[in-house]
Amino acid sequence: MNRLLADLRIVELSAFVAAPLGGMTMAQFGAEVIRIDPIGGGIDFNRWPVTQDGASLYWAGMNKAKRSVALALDKPEGRDLAQAIATAPGPGAGIVLTNLPPLPGLDYASLKGKREDVILLRLIGNRDGSAAVDYTVNAASGFPMVTGPTSAGGGAPVNNVLPAWDIAAGLYLATSLLAAERHRARTGEGQEVVAALADVMLAAVGHLGYVGDVCVNGRARPAIGNDLYGSFGRDFATADGRRVMIIALTPRQWRALGRVTGLADKLAMVGEMMEVDLDTETGRYEARDAIAALVARWCAGKTLAEITAAFSGSGVLWGPFQDFVELVRNDPRCSPANPLFATVEQPGIGRYPMPGLPLEFSASPREPTHPAPRLGEHTDQVLAEVLGLSGREIARLHDTGIAVGPPG
Amino acid sequence: MNRLLADLRIVELSAFVAAPLGGMTMAQFGAEVIRIDPIGGGIDFNRWPVTQDGASLYWAGMNKAKRSVALALDKPEGRDLAQAIATAPGPGAGIVLTNLPPLPGLDYASLKGKREDVILLRLIGNRDGSAAVDYTVNAASGFPMVTGPTSAGGGAPVNNVLPAWDIAAGLYLATSLLAAERHRARTGEGQEVVAALADVMLAAVGHLGYVGDVCVNGRARPAIGNDLYGSFGRDFATADGRRVMIIALTPRQWRALGRVTGLADKLAMVGEMMEVDLDTETGRYEARDAIAALVARWCAGKTLAEITAAFSGSGVLWGPFQDFVELVRNDPRCSPANPLFATVEQPGIGRYPMPGLPLEFSASPREPTHPAPRLGEHTDQVLAEVLGLSGREIARLHDTGIAVGPPG
Repeated sequence: MNRLLADLRIVELSAFVAAPLGGMTMAQFGAEVIRIDPIGGGIDFNRWPVTQDGASLYWAGMNKAKRSVALALDKPEGRDLAQAIATAPGPGAGIVLTNLPPLPGLDYASLKGKREDVILLRLIGNRDGSAAVDYTVNAASGFPMVTGPTSAGGGAPVNNVLPAWDIAAGLYLATSLLAAERHRARTGEGQEVVAALADVMLAAVGHLGYVGDVCVNGRARPAIGNDLYGSFGRDFATADGRRVMIIALTPRQWRALGRVTGLADKLAMVGEMMEVDLDTETGRYEARDAIAALVARWCAGKTLAEITAAFSGSGVLWGPFQDFVELVRNDPRCSPANPLFATVEQPGIGRYPMPGLPLEFSASPREPTHPAPRLGEHTDQVLAEVLGLSGREIARLHDTGIAVGPPG
Repeated sequence: MNRLLADLRIVELSAFVAAPLGGMTMAQFGAEVIRIDPIGGGIDFNRWPVTQDGASLYWAGMNKAKRSVALALDKPEGRDLAQAIATAPGPGAGIVLTNLPPLPGLDYASLKGKREDVILLRLIGNRDGSAAVDYTVNAASGFPMVTGPTSAGGGAPVNNVLPAWDIAAGLYLATSLLAAERHRARTGEGQEVVAALADVMLAAVGHLGYVGDVCVNGRARPAIGNDLYGSFGRDFATADGRRVMIIALTPRQWRALGRVTGLADKLAMVGEMMEVDLDTETGRYEARDAIAALVARWCAGKTLAEITAAFSGSGVLWGPFQDFVELVRNDPRCSPANPLFATVEQPGIGRYPMPGLPLEFSASPREPTHPAPRLGEHTDQVLAEVLGLSGREIARLHDTGIAVGPPG
């Protein structure tokens, strides 16, 4: 966390990954981010992974450093309060981030009616309003048809486990929020910003050249397993049952690989044999199976520790594969030894390392990561501070079931 | 594209995906983005996919709407020009974005020596300065060990084909650029922002709850093929050899699936048989194989067209898998029927649909997407406009091989 955006207030009506990540990114920049949920929690309140007691590690992960308000959003009075919080005055306030269908009073026209310069950022599935989520967008993207082992055959699609489209959408929302707020600060003009998750996918497919490949070349990127498309890169087994990714994108990386493995002469023979120039990426790609045959034998004769020793500081571009347990237990980058992480007490869950922003700002020092709130933890505080409600009014809202504080 | 950031100038020294995407995002917001490359092109100038003539569709995709300057960056005079462009005066100028090792004169201290309030955003591999790219960061992330068909056995890792970490890093850079520029506009203070690609990965693993899962529960997310973790979702084969992704995250989606397939009664029997509450995500996850057995038989008896007809407007969350050719040729979302795309003439390649920003801004209408520049297309223009060099001085720089215009 840092304090770069400490003068902004963002109201979030969200669930799952994209909008919560966008809001959390703002919160980790120091912005006041108020996530308003229905009483009992939103549709993502119990998302896996969960603890043995059913507390969501996912929800905690996606809502760090936010304030949580729980309101009866199924009732007009609850929605009125949400609208009032969203449109409260202040130069850095009046910014709303959502990926949920708009509730009455929380659409752009209604919000604008209460605050002329409101900024509403809204993520939808498809541009036509039909539903789409990371899983369906990914299915349409073309990527699952070229992911996974080619030996498995059958051409069955392989899904990403990482919700990559949601992550990209969340970060596009964060960027766009700051662009829209910059515009408002300069002109006084608010606006509605709408992103379709499907468009986030389509833009990436286009940016990476795959739309052009089909249109211009009449072909699609083939399925090549773990191979790197258009250059040399593949995974290899080690003598001790581990696997490593080895890559040669640049001429320097390629020469380092030949030098460190002692295979330079044999690799030159591959170039002659395959009649390609291995100093080019295209040449290495065309000869990749022959190159890999040599590298595979070299790796198979060495343990991961031996390969690490050989490659360390050599200029070879490589890395070992590890599973989540190995990552968390053995990789010092995934621990408080890395300033990205701080060990934090998460209410209802326990103490574990939580990441902040994956960037360092020289003019805004890193502050400790804050945990996620308990659901409704800040209901009373926000009603008092943002709306100026009295203790008596807040008590009435509790009595009538319109506002709820944290459990316990 | 739009014009929201038209008063910013960003100088990019970059290659491959992350920094080019960050810069292109700014360019598609209307910022002037000057990508400075070595003469002949950077290390990504020939990245696949390429045309039959070897022109990079990838490079064109990642550099749309930028200006291109080609300088002899291996010579002091070329680097001095790059430094002068990067630190030229102007309230929206003096912002540098890079993911390359800093050249002499282009590190933060040198840039700051020329312009006190310069903002330098720098993506590195690992925090300790060691190299890491999307492929090696992904290998370390844990995701490849839980991706792909469980039936294939052996626990071999499966790489993402999408460079998801690079995309996330590029968008974090875009967000951070605006946060740092906002700070500078308010305080006059520039800064250096450093992101490690490995930290981008680690933050995502933590945000999604997987670090907590290991620390708190002592377990890792299992490999479950294309199944959705913690709820119901899987891919199914149709009667005509296609595949569809079907998901039930919410109670409404779950009820819709039962209703539309006519399987509601049988699904209730699954709940009884498996002794779980199928109205909860956890219950559906635990009973997923039994649910899938019913849904698979239903899908296997229907063509994709029949499934589309049945699910359309029903509230079922689903989508067909398609490959890149099907996406580009058959999906109207991936065509100029979608305002995201415009058919653009890309010099040296041809006409094809190119995506703009995947967001609509009500206060800043969408403008036509611009193609990528030819390498060095704006060398002379930038030297004249930004540095105020005379035609004679520019001619000398060409004669001495310090500056180069576009080929031809």
